Amino acid sequence: MRVDGRPFRTIWSPEPECVDIIDQTRLPHRFETRRLVTLQDAATAIADMQVRGAPLIGVTAAYGVALGLKRDASDATLDEICATLRATRPTAVNLQWALDRVRSRLTPLPPSRRLSAAWDLAALMADEDAAICEAIGDHGVSLIAEIARRKPGQLATVDWGTATAPIYKAHEAGLPVHVFVDETRPRNQGAALTAWELGHHGVPHTIVVDNAGGHLMQHGMVDLVIVGTDRTTAQGDVCNKIGTYLKALAARDNGIPFYVAAPSSSIDFRIRNGLDEIEIEQRGAHEVTHMSGETSDGGIETVRITPASSPVMNFAFDVTPARFVSGLVTERGIVAANAEALAAAFPERL
Amino acid sequence: MRVDGRPFRTIWSPEPECVDIIDQTRLPHRFETRRLVTLQDAATAIADMQVRGAPLIGVTAAYGVALGLKRDASDATLDEICATLRATRPTAVNLQWALDRVRSRLTPLPPSRRLSAAWDLAALMADEDAAICEAIGDHGVSLIAEIARRKPGQLATVDWGTATAPIYKAHEAGLPVHVFVDETRPRNQGAALTAWELGHHGVPHTIVVDNAGGHLMQHGMVDLVIVGTDRTTAQGDVCNKIGTYLKALAARDNGIPFYVAAPSSSIDFRIRNGLDEIEIEQRGAHEVTHMSGETSDGGIETVRITPASSPVMNFAFDVTPARFVSGLVTERGIVAANAEALAAAFPERL
Repeated sequence: MRVDGRPFRTIWSPEPECVDIIDQTRLPHRFETRRLVTLQDAATAIADMQVRGAPLIGVTAAYGVALGLKRDASDATLDEICATLRATRPTAVNLQWALDRVRSRLTPLPPSRRLSAAWDLAALMADEDAAICEAIGDHGVSLIAEIARRKPGQLATVDWGTATAPIYKAHEAGLPVHVFVDETRPRNQGAALTAWELGHHGVPHTIVVDNAGGHLMQHGMVDLVIVGTDRTTAQGDVCNKIGTYLKALAARDNGIPFYVAAPSSSIDFRIRNGLDEIEIEQRGAHEVTHMSGETSDGGIETVRITPASSPVMNFAFDVTPARFVSGLVTERGIVAANAEALAAAFPERL
Repeated sequence: MRVDGRPFRTIWSPEPECVDIIDQTRLPHRFETRRLVTLQDAATAIADMQVRGAPLIGVTAAYGVALGLKRDASDATLDEICATLRATRPTAVNLQWALDRVRSRLTPLPPSRRLSAAWDLAALMADEDAAICEAIGDHGVSLIAEIARRKPGQLATVDWGTATAPIYKAHEAGLPVHVFVDETRPRNQGAALTAWELGHHGVPHTIVVDNAGGHLMQHGMVDLVIVGTDRTTAQGDVCNKIGTYLKALAARDNGIPFYVAAPSSSIDFRIRNGLDEIEIEQRGAHEVTHMSGETSDGGIETVRITPASSPVMNFAFDVTPARFVSGLVTERGIVAANAEALAAAFPERL
């Protein structure tokens, strides 16, 4: 992402043995970076969503392992580190995938070589993630360009979750893209983060509440829906930020293409039926009952927005069945959301 | 509604020539009543949503006419008063209906008799509204009781908008009803008002974000969806709080009954196709960009939750096509959502 003209990654290692992140809980009101020094810093960054989005969670976990190995690189410590990080978010499969990869790379090494190998691998995974994101952007932009060819004038998309790569690419390619940014309650990642990022890139956009998506689609104001995914099943079911399923229903009812930006690290080939087999993370009530924002004098304040006595449930994700998905935009191209197509595209993962 | 054991209406005339309301913009943090003394007070109460919900808007408008006639009861002033009130909310048909009714009652009278007639009519309309609400509750509770007979254990409903009458009746009748209260962004009427009301009545409920409805329905956690309506067309299309359509799609996809609490004053027999013929009110960006709540020291603070440079659109309503509506719960019973059934139920309105 670009901030005031400077390119920024969301995680980077500015000097040996430490990691910096953009603290996404402070946006859009404050642009602050945070240094992760210990394993616990990394675990907290994931659990408290200072980092968010499935791929970034995986990379942060890889750096977290490296931070944890500083003191002791024994098998027992490596196990403990992985267990700590694994427990931070139950739904995102990238986290599990990243930890499995790090562990299988480090375990065969003698403990004395594990620390530097962990740092190298984390940096490699960060680079790979950027490359995958770029590839998804390239495949996604051809999709957007095709729709633009059929429809003159501005092209409106809905973004839901970490699915902005194709949109940035389309904007850079000069396509007249306009993004309706859903607020994405709770935590408001859309209103707080996506809108902030799009604004810094100069991409035309409009914030709407999550409830508005159906109305926009009914009235021909949306040409394409692109969403992210935290876990994709072998048959193409998509587990993403809660509310994604409702947008998929509206896209189907109005004949609008519904695509998912799905890095292959999000695909969990061990499971098929997302509705039955994915554990949906429940997060704290505080994310629903309270809201943070900027006061008129420029301070940051948190306010309670619900009655203190009313109970709350806070599901972080829902599952969109594959039948609603027009296609998965992966780093290897656009893949149909079914078991055969996914197996053919990623045969080495079976 | 009951507040600390005392029954309260949302609008009442405590003494001649003045009107009190519960200021719904202050809930759930403050229970405050507000006195309406002038026409402008009434117009502001409607426009700023100190009163909300289609029937209450109509009654407030009727009282607003009475307040406006205090100084001068000429034809010209009556026209001007009605125009002022009519402009406050374009979508809710109860407002138009209430004003038409008041005007057709007052116009034939000599100006000297209009003021007292206006007060009498407003009070009558408030009483009628309470009776209609009661009747809708009675018809709705038979619906809930029928579902309860087929399903042992707790009965979960989703409430969207001003559709609580059947739920209160079911609770009072001893049915084991549990309500998932949607937050209903923007303005958060669900989290702020419905939850507060249910809590004061002792009805078991859980607040969820608007995005959660689909997930709850996919997982068998909802037995019935009941929503309100601000305008119902002659063929049964339902214009209600933005986001209602998305819940209707989820109810259909999961085979869950979707009912609409529809007082006949919400039915606009002049229009058929809600998607084409209803003007959807767009409200101020502030409702999306800012959020009010209680600070940790008990004060009320408003904070900005979006980037200052991001544009916003704020549609207040959407339209749910009749094909998604299982039935309309009216004061005359449950009516199918189609032109024939509505015409048969309300022949005098054609």
